[in-house]
Amino acid sequence: MLKINEKRFLADLRELSLIGATAEGGVSRPALTVHDLEARQWYRGKIARAGLGYALDGAGNQSAILWSDPPSDKRILAGSHLDSVPNGGRYDGALGLLVAFEALRTMKDHGIRPKVTLEALNFTDEEGAIMGLMGSRALAGQIKPADFDRAKISPGELTKRLDAAGISRESMLAARRDDVLAWIELHIEQGTRLEDENIDIGVVDAIVGIRSLKLTLYGEAAHAGTKPMRQRRDALWGAASFVSRARRHVMDNYSPGVCNVGIISAKPGAFNIVPAQVDLALEFRHGSWEEMAAMGGDLLGLLEECARKFDLRASFEETPAVHPARMSETVMSAIERAAAALGLSHQRMLSFAGHDSQSLAQICPAAMFFVPSARGISHNPMEFTSAADCVNGANLMLHTLLELLDTLG
Amino acid sequence: MLKINEKRFLADLRELSLIGATAEGGVSRPALTVHDLEARQWYRGKIARAGLGYALDGAGNQSAILWSDPPSDKRILAGSHLDSVPNGGRYDGALGLLVAFEALRTMKDHGIRPKVTLEALNFTDEEGAIMGLMGSRALAGQIKPADFDRAKISPGELTKRLDAAGISRESMLAARRDDVLAWIELHIEQGTRLEDENIDIGVVDAIVGIRSLKLTLYGEAAHAGTKPMRQRRDALWGAASFVSRARRHVMDNYSPGVCNVGIISAKPGAFNIVPAQVDLALEFRHGSWEEMAAMGGDLLGLLEECARKFDLRASFEETPAVHPARMSETVMSAIERAAAALGLSHQRMLSFAGHDSQSLAQICPAAMFFVPSARGISHNPMEFTSAADCVNGANLMLHTLLELLDTLG
Repeated sequence: MLKINEKRFLADLRELSLIGATAEGGVSRPALTVHDLEARQWYRGKIARAGLGYALDGAGNQSAILWSDPPSDKRILAGSHLDSVPNGGRYDGALGLLVAFEALRTMKDHGIRPKVTLEALNFTDEEGAIMGLMGSRALAGQIKPADFDRAKISPGELTKRLDAAGISRESMLAARRDDVLAWIELHIEQGTRLEDENIDIGVVDAIVGIRSLKLTLYGEAAHAGTKPMRQRRDALWGAASFVSRARRHVMDNYSPGVCNVGIISAKPGAFNIVPAQVDLALEFRHGSWEEMAAMGGDLLGLLEECARKFDLRASFEETPAVHPARMSETVMSAIERAAAALGLSHQRMLSFAGHDSQSLAQICPAAMFFVPSARGISHNPMEFTSAADCVNGANLMLHTLLELLDTLG
Repeated sequence: MLKINEKRFLADLRELSLIGATAEGGVSRPALTVHDLEARQWYRGKIARAGLGYALDGAGNQSAILWSDPPSDKRILAGSHLDSVPNGGRYDGALGLLVAFEALRTMKDHGIRPKVTLEALNFTDEEGAIMGLMGSRALAGQIKPADFDRAKISPGELTKRLDAAGISRESMLAARRDDVLAWIELHIEQGTRLEDENIDIGVVDAIVGIRSLKLTLYGEAAHAGTKPMRQRRDALWGAASFVSRARRHVMDNYSPGVCNVGIISAKPGAFNIVPAQVDLALEFRHGSWEEMAAMGGDLLGLLEECARKFDLRASFEETPAVHPARMSETVMSAIERAAAALGLSHQRMLSFAGHDSQSLAQICPAAMFFVPSARGISHNPMEFTSAADCVNGANLMLHTLLELLDTLG
């Protein structure tokens, strides 16, 4: 059975981890800053030395290309990203790109001419130093001029960084591709489900949607001494009850969906004043829009119940939602067939973090799979995936691409 | 039966309410600012016109004096304060002083020569524009030089205000009196128990103590998507549970004692991060030190239970407590005998707000009684006590003083 070149692949992974290396053992490569540019240069050199084709699109996404003969109209894409969060880990993104690159190199080594042209893509700014999922959203035609105004860096700095990558705002707005036949991405799990259950591979069936609501409960300020407790309209009583009930309800009825109250404050805010107002930041995530809608209804219903119980008034304000991205059954099946052939145990699961795959899912059949993350640690220098799991991931990427070529080619 | 001069008394109450009058119908007389100084001047004039003696002590406390013959070594004191919170009401403090003054005037009108010298006292800065209970604490010898450094106004402003009242830091530190035989104070209830139960008079058996604790629960920050809910150590889950259980426990076991969580915050504080730390400001009040100690033990026990339940760590920090002030059985009995003679219904109750009486309770038998406050509104221009209740209060003050003269004289 065809296998990737372990030694070469692991050596590349080590080499890459030296670019932007931090004292704590991780890497710091925010998008289009010096170390990310260095990593991009490194990738371009590796592609050249491998004898693969190279392309840079208008969004700064870099592709290693293994051409079909004759070149196909459509292409199958795989990859991830080389940028990292500040002081992040070695595996997030980097491993996903390298397994795709190694898969193409391995095919080339073995003289495999794919029926469909393959690309191993490094997406620009997945992590959000500029706007997040920038390269993949541009490829899916989802970047609008207004997005540049909302960037996390100044317009001048943005121009400077785009220049450094040889691109511009205009080229980014024109970067949409219509030639993508399918997309496949490996990522580290950033959770512990695989580790806890000793499973090799997580086949992602959806990237969760996210809804974020600012909730407010209004009661009545009162003297915390003279106002008898049974006469109080304490907004925090309602808020505390909501936090407890929301937790219980979501765990009992929507697992593996999750909710979080990450911000809370009480006004006027003094030891001796009964809270007149409590503001909460609620977020919840699930894998389908139907489940998200049901969760939302239940949670807002709970909020109303908690308000009524303590004679309060409730209101909420919703910020734009992130829609769940369903993964393609065709691509998931290809992953599962390849995993079975390789003897890798696997299980379907949700991805609770965002990934470039959600952009790609807008324009083509797309899926992704996870390899284990030690203790689920991520966005941290302590991030770790064993060499064995990395190699499993690379072989699975290779055979998934071969399966997809069989199915779609 | 001897009664106060209703017409004169109510006219004085109206006159006084014009000093520092606000557009909303209340008064604004922060201690030793222009309108408080004007009210003090007004009181001094009233004393002179009533033919009563006048004294100003080192703390700026003003007394109307009805001398015994011969002058007694010890004196019975009554009164309250003329200062108000900014944009406060007409009754808080003012009514308490006027009933004491009217009682002395009435005795003088009727040629009553008390067996013990009586004073109707206006205490400086009860409301805390400078430090709170300033005049009464000085009289009880409880002001320390360091208290001036903790004043809410600058040292220069403090000097200016004390000058305006004809006093100084030095005179205030020397203002302790050892000639107080007993103390009696009328105050508006600032709650609704009298109104709710249609009772004329609340006989305060204790002014509650206050304990204030900063509580902290420590969990673990986590990604609000990738961390499964059952693996989270969410500090807000513990805090929410504590708020709900503390409420229930205090209402079920310590009523009429009260507790309040008035401040809450979560760190790091983002929609998508599970709270690693929650800080709470807890306050609780009860009428005896024994009950306060038991409440404190129970509440900290609950905190521990909530921490354990969600795998958190808890800590707390206590700020200096306000000790409960038990009122004197002798003085309470005098109030109750006088109320019975006047046909006024009465009930013993706690005072949940602080009053000058708690300073006096440190140096003599002291007690206070409440008259109803409409809807419990206080520290607000809407503060209201009916003329009938004001008159009842004045007659009760008169007869309580007469009872005390009989008992203690």
